[in-house]
Amino acid sequence: MTSRPPLLLTPGPLTTAPSVRAALDRDWGSRDRDFIAVTARVRTKLCALLPEHDGLTAIPIQGSGSFAVEAMLGTFVPPGGHVLVLVNGAYGRRMAEMAARAGRRVSMLEGPETEAPDVAALVRRLAQDPTIRHVAVVHCETTTGLLTPLADVSDVAARHGCGLLIDAMSSFGALPIPASVRFEALASSANKCLQGVPGLAFVLARTEAVARAGGQAHALVLDLAAQWAGFEANGQWRFTPPTQCVAALDRALADLDAEGGPPARLARYQANLAALTDGLAAHGFHPLVAPALQAPIIVTFPAPDAVWWDFAALYDGLLEEGFAIYPGKTAAAESFRVGCIGAVAPPDFVRFGAAFGRVVAQLSQAAPRA
Amino acid sequence: MTSRPPLLLTPGPLTTAPSVRAALDRDWGSRDRDFIAVTARVRTKLCALLPEHDGLTAIPIQGSGSFAVEAMLGTFVPPGGHVLVLVNGAYGRRMAEMAARAGRRVSMLEGPETEAPDVAALVRRLAQDPTIRHVAVVHCETTTGLLTPLADVSDVAARHGCGLLIDAMSSFGALPIPASVRFEALASSANKCLQGVPGLAFVLARTEAVARAGGQAHALVLDLAAQWAGFEANGQWRFTPPTQCVAALDRALADLDAEGGPPARLARYQANLAALTDGLAAHGFHPLVAPALQAPIIVTFPAPDAVWWDFAALYDGLLEEGFAIYPGKTAAAESFRVGCIGAVAPPDFVRFGAAFGRVVAQLSQAAPRA
Repeated sequence: MTSRPPLLLTPGPLTTAPSVRAALDRDWGSRDRDFIAVTARVRTKLCALLPEHDGLTAIPIQGSGSFAVEAMLGTFVPPGGHVLVLVNGAYGRRMAEMAARAGRRVSMLEGPETEAPDVAALVRRLAQDPTIRHVAVVHCETTTGLLTPLADVSDVAARHGCGLLIDAMSSFGALPIPASVRFEALASSANKCLQGVPGLAFVLARTEAVARAGGQAHALVLDLAAQWAGFEANGQWRFTPPTQCVAALDRALADLDAEGGPPARLARYQANLAALTDGLAAHGFHPLVAPALQAPIIVTFPAPDAVWWDFAALYDGLLEEGFAIYPGKTAAAESFRVGCIGAVAPPDFVRFGAAFGRVVAQLSQAAPRA
Repeated sequence: MTSRPPLLLTPGPLTTAPSVRAALDRDWGSRDRDFIAVTARVRTKLCALLPEHDGLTAIPIQGSGSFAVEAMLGTFVPPGGHVLVLVNGAYGRRMAEMAARAGRRVSMLEGPETEAPDVAALVRRLAQDPTIRHVAVVHCETTTGLLTPLADVSDVAARHGCGLLIDAMSSFGALPIPASVRFEALASSANKCLQGVPGLAFVLARTEAVARAGGQAHALVLDLAAQWAGFEANGQWRFTPPTQCVAALDRALADLDAEGGPPARLARYQANLAALTDGLAAHGFHPLVAPALQAPIIVTFPAPDAVWWDFAALYDGLLEEGFAIYPGKTAAAESFRVGCIGAVAPPDFVRFGAAFGRVVAQLSQAAPRA
C-alpha cells in the first residue's frame, strides 16, 4: 500500500524505537486502574527529568505541543493580564498570536532569527512597563534550531516579579534547563526529545500557580487548572486520553532512563549534530546559526545560490534514498532543515551525508548551465 | 508488567481490531506525501459516511472528542452570538459550559435525562427569542444512551433560521443521520463507532459556513476555519497531527467498508444490545431508558436497591472475568453503564451475561443479611 517508511530527520514526529511502537499495541480502559497507574507514572517521571522538581506538577494534555503552549498561556496569564513574548522565530510569533486570541494583552520583543533574545532590551522593557506580569520565551526555536540562554531571561523576569512561561517543545528531555531557571510553567510534547509518538503534550507547572489559576483559561478543554484538578481528584483524565500515546510515552520514558537519562540523550544528539554538519560541510553546506547558539535538535541550512536549487527535487531525491528532511521556515532566506533527534544515531547521519552528496551531484549535473 | 487487557464494554476508548492496532506500528513524516494522502483519504471517507454530503467538508482535529465539540461551538457561534443548548444529560451541560467559557451567550433548554428533548418547548423558545441563532444538541447522550430524534430538532431550527450544531460523538458511523437533517456542523471522534484509537476527533461542516467563520474561534488551536484552510492549502495539518492515530482511523474506515458500512455496523451493535439486555434481564437488571429511545451504543442500568450493591466490587469482579464496564453518570439515581460498541460481537455479550450472573451471585451471597 504505502512505500517503505523513510528515516525521519525532522523536528518531529520522528523516528521512534520499535519498543515504543510495540507499546501502542494494546487497548486500555481510560478509567481502569492499570491505565491510571500508567498516567501517574508518566506524570511523576516527567517531573523527575528536572533535577529540581519540588513544588512542580506535570499536567498532560491531549493534542499537539501547540495545544499545551496555548493552554499554558491561557491558564497562567489571567484575563486582563499583560504578557511580553520574546520573538526570534515562528514559534515565538505563534505564542503572541495565541495570547492575543485568548484576549490577553500582548507585547512582543522581536529580534533577528539568528540571534538569541536581547536581554538588555528585555530589562529596559520590563522596567518601562510594570503592567507586564509574564514573560514567554521559546527555549529552542524550531524555526532555526537556535538555543535561547534561559538563565539570563529567568533572572531578569524574576527581578521584575514576572512569571516565566517556557516553550520547551523541542528541547525538554535532552537539553538541560539550568537549576537557576525559575519558571511558572513549561510546555513540551511527547514526540520530540522524549521520543514518544505525537498526540500527547504536557505542561510542567508550579503547583501553587496551578492552584490559583482556576477558571482563568479561555477554553474549557485548554484549562490546565481543571485538567490538574481532575488528575489530583482520582488520577483520571477529564476527557478521553489518547491511551495508546500515553502508554507509548510511558515506554519512551523507561527507554530514556535505560539510555542514561537526558545527559546521555544529549550526548547522542550532539554526536548526531557533528556527523550531520561534517557530512554536509563536505558538500559545501553549513548551518545558518552560529555554533555557540546551535542546539543539537534541528539544523537550518541556507539554500545555495545556484541555478539547480529546488527544494522539492532535493526532498524527493533524499526520500528515494530513505530520508525525510524538512522545509525551511526562516522569514528571510530560503533554507531547509534537518533534525538530529529521535531513534537515530551518528551512523545514520554518515549514511545521510553520503546520500545527500549523491542527490546534490545529480541535481547540479541535470540543471541547465547558466 | 500489566495484567491481561480486559474486553472494554465502555463508551470508548474501546476494544479495537488487531488490524487497527497493527496500523499504529509505523512512523510517518507529517509533511510527507504518504501521510498527506492518508489525511486526504480519511477526510473524504468521513464525509462519504453521510449519504448526502455535497457541500460538506471534514476537519480532523487533534485531541479527544470534547476538543472537537468545543472547537465547533467556538468556530461556528460567533463572538456575541447566542446559542440554545438542549440538555438532557452531562454532555449537553458540557456544551453549555464550553460555549459560556468561549464568551458566547448561552441558553439551556433542560429536560429529564430519560426523555428526548421537548420539541414543542424548543419551538416556543425560538419563537420567543429571535437573538438565538444556533441550536446545539447531543445525538446520543452518553450519560444514559438516549437517542435524540434529530429530524424534529433540525426542522424546528431550520424554520427559525438557526444553525444546527450536533454532538454526534457516540453515534456517528453507526446510527443514521436522517437525510432531512440540515446541520451547520457535526462533531465526532475516531474512537467511538468508527472503532479507531483515541487522540483524534473531527467536525463535518458545511463548507460555506466554514469559509465565513475565519477568526471567530476563541482559541487558535481550536479554530476549525484555520484548520480547514490549512488542509485546503496544501493537504497538511496546521499543527503536528497524531500520525499513528490518523493511520489507525484510515484502517478503521477501510474495515468499516469491509463490514458493510454503517448499516452493517448498526446491525451488529443492535445484536450486541439484544444479547446484553437479555443477559442482564436474566439476573433482574433492565435499562433505565425506554426501548424506543435506547441507542445500541451504551446502556445505563439502575443500581439495584439491595444491601449487597457496591459498584467497585461489581467492577472488580467483572474485571477478574475479563470485562471492563463503566460507572454511571446519571444525576438522579446510582447506575452503571455497559457499552455495545467496538470490535465486540454478540457471543462476547453472552459470555458477559454469564460472568455478570456469577459476580452478582458472589456479591449477594457475601453480603450481610439485612
